[in-house]
Amino acid sequence: MVLFEFIRIKYPRRDNLLMNRFDLQAKFMLSGDVSGLKKEFEKFIATTNETILKKGSEKLATIDQYRIEKDTLTLSIASEGTLRPHNALLQIKNALSKELGKTHHVGVRGINIETYTISFDLPREPLKDISIPFASVRIQGKQATMTLSDVSDEFLRRNYIDRMMNLVREKVESQYYEGKAEFWKLIWKSEEKKPVWTKDPTEEMERLGWLKQGPTKGKWFYRPQAATILKTMERIAINEVLQPLGFQEVIESHIKPFDIWLKTGHMEGMPYEFYYISEPKTRDAKDWERFTDLTKITKEVPVEELQKNLSVPTAGLCYAQCPMIYWSFKGKTIAEKSLPVLVYDRTAISARYESGGRHGIERVDEFHRIEPVYIGTREQLLLLREKFLERYKHVFNEIFDLEWQMAWVTPWYLQQAGKISDESTQDTGTIDYEAYMPYRGSRNDSEWLEFQNLSILGDKYITAFNIKAQKSELWSGCSGIGLERWTTAFLAQKGLDPQRWPEGFRKYLDKLPTGTEFL
Amino acid sequence: MVLFEFIRIKYPRRDNLLMNRFDLQAKFMLSGDVSGLKKEFEKFIATTNETILKKGSEKLATIDQYRIEKDTLTLSIASEGTLRPHNALLQIKNALSKELGKTHHVGVRGINIETYTISFDLPREPLKDISIPFASVRIQGKQATMTLSDVSDEFLRRNYIDRMMNLVREKVESQYYEGKAEFWKLIWKSEEKKPVWTKDPTEEMERLGWLKQGPTKGKWFYRPQAATILKTMERIAINEVLQPLGFQEVIESHIKPFDIWLKTGHMEGMPYEFYYISEPKTRDAKDWERFTDLTKITKEVPVEELQKNLSVPTAGLCYAQCPMIYWSFKGKTIAEKSLPVLVYDRTAISARYESGGRHGIERVDEFHRIEPVYIGTREQLLLLREKFLERYKHVFNEIFDLEWQMAWVTPWYLQQAGKISDESTQDTGTIDYEAYMPYRGSRNDSEWLEFQNLSILGDKYITAFNIKAQKSELWSGCSGIGLERWTTAFLAQKGLDPQRWPEGFRKYLDKLPTGTEFL
Repeated sequence: MVLFEFIRIKYPRRDNLLMNRFDLQAKFMLSGDVSGLKKEFEKFIATTNETILKKGSEKLATIDQYRIEKDTLTLSIASEGTLRPHNALLQIKNALSKELGKTHHVGVRGINIETYTISFDLPREPLKDISIPFASVRIQGKQATMTLSDVSDEFLRRNYIDRMMNLVREKVESQYYEGKAEFWKLIWKSEEKKPVWTKDPTEEMERLGWLKQGPTKGKWFYRPQAATILKTMERIAINEVLQPLGFQEVIESHIKPFDIWLKTGHMEGMPYEFYYISEPKTRDAKDWERFTDLTKITKEVPVEELQKNLSVPTAGLCYAQCPMIYWSFKGKTIAEKSLPVLVYDRTAISARYESGGRHGIERVDEFHRIEPVYIGTREQLLLLREKFLERYKHVFNEIFDLEWQMAWVTPWYLQQAGKISDESTQDTGTIDYEAYMPYRGSRNDSEWLEFQNLSILGDKYITAFNIKAQKSELWSGCSGIGLERWTTAFLAQKGLDPQRWPEGFRKYLDKLPTGTEFL
Repeated sequence: MVLFEFIRIKYPRRDNLLMNRFDLQAKFMLSGDVSGLKKEFEKFIATTNETILKKGSEKLATIDQYRIEKDTLTLSIASEGTLRPHNALLQIKNALSKELGKTHHVGVRGINIETYTISFDLPREPLKDISIPFASVRIQGKQATMTLSDVSDEFLRRNYIDRMMNLVREKVESQYYEGKAEFWKLIWKSEEKKPVWTKDPTEEMERLGWLKQGPTKGKWFYRPQAATILKTMERIAINEVLQPLGFQEVIESHIKPFDIWLKTGHMEGMPYEFYYISEPKTRDAKDWERFTDLTKITKEVPVEELQKNLSVPTAGLCYAQCPMIYWSFKGKTIAEKSLPVLVYDRTAISARYESGGRHGIERVDEFHRIEPVYIGTREQLLLLREKFLERYKHVFNEIFDLEWQMAWVTPWYLQQAGKISDESTQDTGTIDYEAYMPYRGSRNDSEWLEFQNLSILGDKYITAFNIKAQKSELWSGCSGIGLERWTTAFLAQKGLDPQRWPEGFRKYLDKLPTGTEFL
């Protein structure tokens, strides 16, 4: 699992390179009959084309047709995108009001946008049809034409048009990359290690009563034996990795408001993986009396009555801890001497709706992660990454004695941009750590478990949350330490008998609690 | 705050003492005209009254009126409650079918219940009107009369009637106890201690940047300084209380399905305090395409589209940890040698919708608790309580050097039952720990902070989750350790300067991390 894989796709603005065309037809409602003012309008249109719609010698847009009819003026504005016709409209309205008011005491009562069509080139031909909200989209070859269905003032003001064009382009691109494998390049591989067993550790722990499934899908109850192992992983991560690197602990809320996810891009990236939260509309027992009465009588939850009493969700459960850590620095300017900022959260519990693919404690809906976040200069973070690599290697080799490997992984949009040809240029990107899982089959044919990652993300979140340093340009990154993943990677190779665990691990844990005996 | 105050109100069955009366009118639809069978019916009714509706010489119920009209038989059944008339109906139907079928080839096609009225005595006169679902309630003096509005077969089969009677009684009682103070009796009080300051620790920590409010209501972001203090409280609780007493750690899910809360009574007790959870209806990105498109274009969350994509809530966030610990023992028989079972969870985060009364980090919507749960014999638990008292006293006196007190608190329904007259009989019940909060005013006039509790709950949850021991009768209890409460109680008296903290605490923490400096 890429613990934090989503980065919002951004396209460079290429309007000047591509052939874009914006065509808008608008009707101005006037306060008097202007049929007699043909000459004046001719002049007005010509002037507008030469002033408002031009910048120096550059044509920004053109009124290429107009018609006057009693108390209306209909005009078409075309542009190649430098000035969006709808942005020109208000300026034209003001100029027209001034002109007509002064000389003929006629005012502009309103503007109706009749049609608005935007044609633009695509980087490549789509493989199938594309649709988006608010417009019909027609594509011929590499040319897309969007005809807007909502052309209210407010709609245009909200700057949706460019995002709609981006969305069309993005959908074409994703048709090409759908299902394509992620870029993966081996960096390092440990020697082969003989596993002490080949069983599925979750199944065995369940059988022994160390673990109990539930009570809801993809969640587990860890009895003392399993809980001790998980918490030992936490101690090792803190003692052997985070403290030596100088990280300080923070505690964040595990309830994430949508506005944070809107900033990070999670909201549009994986809304189907969230657990959503609703608050009661009121805390007044009186308003809940029918609910409680029905519950007391029927001993069931009255669902309709519940829904009446709940607010619309505005937050979800923690998906990853880093967004809220960035939020905590929002709008701040960090003193140079505090760089790099090194903090981690180990308190917020992560929830991801997994639907189908659940397995054991390694693919679950609820898991326990430590997430270190680092903010600093490019140089500081590249150096930190080296130290992280060294500390993780120490844990996985000397303490866990694992068979594992490391690989560069890069999402397709970076791959496409040709950023991965040479790993020496891998300033930003993610390293995945993968462990051999003997119960899944032979080391060459079975899928290894991704049990750790390490990312440098450039200035993406720094910009999204407007974080600044006294002087330096900032970058950031994070490294998800999944306790369930560490636990299964270790147990899958080393078994459940502490006697057979490697010496380094036994220094942390050499005896399991007895737990409760059942008849 | 009583961290776990709710216990479902149960009334003793007093039907034999009180004057109850059940009157049911039912119409039997028959397959033929029975007007000619007056004699036969007279005999049938007499026989029924003497057989089905009697047990030995005891009258259970009586058919006190009947009428035959073409193909219908209408009858009234009255009872004082030993046999509910609706429970008698099916037996009467069977007997009638047999009788008429054998001799006259007439069958019973169906039964309509025409009216069903239940009169019962109340322990006292209500102070105002009472209403409940499924019936109209009329009260005269201490006599309540319920006339059912839904009398379908299914409704009657579900055993709602008794719960409805209980609900009416409960509502009368609660009118008397509404707003009444909880029973409170001082057990022990420390000497007065001179506080080092009189400021509100939350406000000061916010001012210093140790804490940041949000991002949602009643939640906090703990920067390294505050996080260190909170986590130190956790270490102290584990090292000084839980480990010496032999507790073992478990890890539970922080997502609680309604069925657990139905068992514990939380669902009917405090539904307006939960944070509710909805899952996506599907995890298929295709089904969420309109949602993601709209989010990408508008940069807002499309609420209607979201609601279409979510399931009805069937779970909520952790309110207290003990219910799920009991669930983990559901239906189990515990070996005698494993008693007492001593486990705690410190991982699940608690969420309570607080609405109005939020203040600082001491009254919040999200908090971090350790909850030890103990299951054992009465003797084991009474002994354990003594040890808990001793360990807590050690922490609050020697490590925190607090000014604090302990009191018995007992909910009104126990108070009413006369169970609190003598504390030597306090086998079950709750002890609250309260700390003087100098920032709130003088020690005599200001409200002290409840910062710890300790309960023995008898067999309530043991029964609810059907937990058994090899031989012994089991009791259980729990003791909520709220880290935010320990923190504010301590800081309110001892201030934020580690130099001025008591020696015992400084052994755990004598220096705070520097945190990040902002410009």
